[in-house]
Amino acid sequence: MNNHENQTNQEKLIPTQRSQVKRLPQRADYELQTIYNILDEGLICYVGFVVNNQPFVIPTAYGRINDKLYIHGSPASRMLRSLVGAIEVCVTVTLLDGLVLARSAFHHSMNYRSVVIFGKAEIVGAESEKLEALQAFTEHVVPGRWNEVRQPTRQELQGTLVLSLPITEASAKVRTGAPNDDEADYNLPVWAGVLPLQLDVGKAVADSRLPENIEMPAYVKNYSR
Amino acid sequence: MNNHENQTNQEKLIPTQRSQVKRLPQRADYELQTIYNILDEGLICYVGFVVNNQPFVIPTAYGRINDKLYIHGSPASRMLRSLVGAIEVCVTVTLLDGLVLARSAFHHSMNYRSVVIFGKAEIVGAESEKLEALQAFTEHVVPGRWNEVRQPTRQELQGTLVLSLPITEASAKVRTGAPNDDEADYNLPVWAGVLPLQLDVGKAVADSRLPENIEMPAYVKNYSR
Repeated sequence: MNNHENQTNQEKLIPTQRSQVKRLPQRADYELQTIYNILDEGLICYVGFVVNNQPFVIPTAYGRINDKLYIHGSPASRMLRSLVGAIEVCVTVTLLDGLVLARSAFHHSMNYRSVVIFGKAEIVGAESEKLEALQAFTEHVVPGRWNEVRQPTRQELQGTLVLSLPITEASAKVRTGAPNDDEADYNLPVWAGVLPLQLDVGKAVADSRLPENIEMPAYVKNYSR
Repeated sequence: MNNHENQTNQEKLIPTQRSQVKRLPQRADYELQTIYNILDEGLICYVGFVVNNQPFVIPTAYGRINDKLYIHGSPASRMLRSLVGAIEVCVTVTLLDGLVLARSAFHHSMNYRSVVIFGKAEIVGAESEKLEALQAFTEHVVPGRWNEVRQPTRQELQGTLVLSLPITEASAKVRTGAPNDDEADYNLPVWAGVLPLQLDVGKAVADSRLPENIEMPAYVKNYSR
């Protein structure tokens, strides 16, 4: 694992043949901090894997600890049923920041920040690491939640499949700002600009079976993303 | 194409081995209208495909016309460079509706509506269908936009690769509502409930090169999703 450790000490990943951004490479970013920030802000990742040459793409929650991404094994159970050990995956996370309205249909675009990770996802065997991963899942989605809820029982822990994926072969891709129109099109009498998008958090809804004396915690009341 | 046409006349798709929801099947929905509604509300799909047994998952915009999903070929260009004709894909769209905070770490969940489509994506050859697909892309993202912008030139049309995927082997999966806690856990003094999430549209930002006399169209001002 020396190679792996060396890579995580870098501030920037070295693109490989598959992780190098081929299309619009000017939008590529291999800085680890950029990659981590996008992963930490996102809530759902898309896990791609292959069974008998058939691609599957499954959305699922995730957590990150340093240079490792943890995903629930259950989404991949279709394939894990027949597999022991590691599975080749491609994991993608995208944050949508805006709709880019250009003067031509052709130059319409979106502002986004995305990450693609390639590598082998491995089943986490050690109970201690599994527990850390479950904590990372919960804290990733709702920081402050883990210490307040009932912890996993031994049985729950054993019934949960967790996969670990090193974030060592990955790239980010980012588009920001105004439309890029053809020079001639700037004279057209067409409105152009950006419609910003973001994830909005509504007012929390208490469970109907919640006793009235249990107050909403601050991390729920003030939740933002 | 008779088989295909027959299937689109159904109101409900028949699950196949790969499109059948295996995990939590009670959340599965094969109604075409459910599938179409999710696809129409989403903005980004995740296209999974295989090259030399390596999975790739690429986020991209899309459009729908009846029972066909259209995607830009460019994201798949990595593979299309060496391919003519059809490519096996798995396309996933997910709408995130809420974070489900249970009393135990184990039962934390998310409310979501997702669609998974399996099938062969084919290159659209006919210019007329290609133009219809580009119109669907634009109108899918910003309804009302297409007729106002500069239409694609012949050169732009020829330089754009469009793929068509039949929505005939697909499933939706939907989770709504409160947490499902273990009966014993309802006695715990832990706040539980749902944090609703939705895509929020900010105030549109006009391009800095836009002349002042060009007003923001109503479909931009009142944009919602």
